[in-house]
Amino acid sequence: MQNTPHTPSPETSKQLPELFQLLQPHLKALDAFLETQISEFEPEIRDHVAYSMDTGGKRIRPSLIFFSGWNSEGEIDPNLVKLAAVVETVHLATLVHDDIMDEADIRRNRATVAKKYNNATAVLLGDALFSHAVYLATQFPTTEVCRDIAISMRQVCTGEIMQTMQRGDPNLDMETYFRVIDLKTAELFRVACHLGARLAGFEDDYVKAAGAFGRHLGIAYQIYDDMTDLFSSEEKIGKTLGTDIATGKPTMPLILMRDRLPENEAKALRDTLAGNIEADVPYWLEKLREMGIFEEVRQAIFDEIHKGRNAIRPFQNNPSAAHLHTISELLWNQVAAL
Amino acid sequence: MQNTPHTPSPETSKQLPELFQLLQPHLKALDAFLETQISEFEPEIRDHVAYSMDTGGKRIRPSLIFFSGWNSEGEIDPNLVKLAAVVETVHLATLVHDDIMDEADIRRNRATVAKKYNNATAVLLGDALFSHAVYLATQFPTTEVCRDIAISMRQVCTGEIMQTMQRGDPNLDMETYFRVIDLKTAELFRVACHLGARLAGFEDDYVKAAGAFGRHLGIAYQIYDDMTDLFSSEEKIGKTLGTDIATGKPTMPLILMRDRLPENEAKALRDTLAGNIEADVPYWLEKLREMGIFEEVRQAIFDEIHKGRNAIRPFQNNPSAAHLHTISELLWNQVAAL
Repeated sequence: MQNTPHTPSPETSKQLPELFQLLQPHLKALDAFLETQISEFEPEIRDHVAYSMDTGGKRIRPSLIFFSGWNSEGEIDPNLVKLAAVVETVHLATLVHDDIMDEADIRRNRATVAKKYNNATAVLLGDALFSHAVYLATQFPTTEVCRDIAISMRQVCTGEIMQTMQRGDPNLDMETYFRVIDLKTAELFRVACHLGARLAGFEDDYVKAAGAFGRHLGIAYQIYDDMTDLFSSEEKIGKTLGTDIATGKPTMPLILMRDRLPENEAKALRDTLAGNIEADVPYWLEKLREMGIFEEVRQAIFDEIHKGRNAIRPFQNNPSAAHLHTISELLWNQVAAL
Repeated sequence: MQNTPHTPSPETSKQLPELFQLLQPHLKALDAFLETQISEFEPEIRDHVAYSMDTGGKRIRPSLIFFSGWNSEGEIDPNLVKLAAVVETVHLATLVHDDIMDEADIRRNRATVAKKYNNATAVLLGDALFSHAVYLATQFPTTEVCRDIAISMRQVCTGEIMQTMQRGDPNLDMETYFRVIDLKTAELFRVACHLGARLAGFEDDYVKAAGAFGRHLGIAYQIYDDMTDLFSSEEKIGKTLGTDIATGKPTMPLILMRDRLPENEAKALRDTLAGNIEADVPYWLEKLREMGIFEEVRQAIFDEIHKGRNAIRPFQNNPSAAHLHTISELLWNQVAAL
């Protein structure tokens, strides 16, 4: 039943450009809604909030929400807009906090909140954004949305704490790598799809399936994101290659390479990741290429996308399922083009 | 109708020691409940959570909750225990984040989370605690508890952001000082009393009155807390006096003094707060004493306590009101003993 990699899938309802055309009014409604939220904050911090919200982000999680709850007419559903605002605000809060920890100065060509103001303000502003996301989530009639969001937030934090602890651990295994990306990235993708389908009133089986789709897409997305640190043209991705080698962050390609190298070389890689010796980034990048690690990582991403597609395959009558399938092509194409 | 300061109030139902005796089983139930929550976190961060929870704190907010929702039999109400866990966990989260910003190494004789682990872990662990508090708040049948807690959390953060921005501002006025303590401290006291009374099923007028009591008590508490930085024996309070002068944090005594000093001395104080000249802490402490500022600040605290007591005065048939009145004596006595 699985598609062979690179074969377009028969369930695709729309071509990608057409699909993103359909999505635009929904994203515009989200932007308009988020804009109105700035004045919901206390006057003294509205400028800070406005600054942190203006990220020009990719709006991946909101897109998943709109597609998971898609109705046949493609009408804008205010509940989905509000849910998208909740999830995007949680995501923004995590970015504000991430930038403190990473000591990042720049995000999307602007100074990070931590840089523009200071670390203390960034900690507190992230907290205020979290709080406001929760407040919005309490505006649904039942406590379900708020509960699911709270659990997801906790899991995202747990994944990030684990990642922090693993920094410089040369022996991190693949199972733990997957556990971390499941928590820190896939969980929010999952809850976006799950709650999107739930608020649209779809049947329980589909809600669960949409959640599983989101989870696998999230895993795939994070593996891809980690991969671009090691294999991509610097101009294209706009960042320096190999920072994960230099800062001792073991990602899938590095774990695969380490476990396959002869012991003397594996030891050199472990020493590099542990920060015991200076990182020879170009050497390891070349090594990854030579060993064919990238093809393998690419295949792991395709496998996750397949798992996600398989979860929603039984629901082809649901317009949402076809749209989710299509959005997964976006990632597929990006990975294939690497 | 107002009591004169230092006169014991006629509405007092119990002596303080007796009241705190009554409270013990409730606080024990809270401790037991919080202990069970550790295993609700993902296994990988349970040690971190356990460490952050073991603060030996004063449990002021939980006490307010138990007293606001006090029934005539003084029975333990599981809903109040859960609410106390929510509010105390939010408070713990703010402490974990505060200690990062203050670069504090020690809290209650133990290394802070930021010191024991690192800043990144402290940011994330605070977030995880926030998230779990929200999750607990969603376990009530309606969204009200969660909504009120979310709004309070946002206000606490706003107050702290304002305080961060005001650091070193020599011209901070009294109105803004009150606004900040209202947000950063009084709001959580207010919501504790408000929701405690609400969950106990008390009438709307009393719920509102209990909230007002909590708010004024919170303002009084923060003024007292700020005051102890400038006027208290170092041995008694266990901290160095005058750090707020040295770090440029304008609190009520300093604002009062500044606005009453002749211009050349006021300028010296402003320059001190702005960090332009080195702080002569003993000089300013002596000046505060000479000018009788402390009596005035003390009176401001008593005034707030009065306002809180007046709010609940019409409800003398409610066993909760008498208990709240009594707890306000604890602060009164501490202030009187300074």
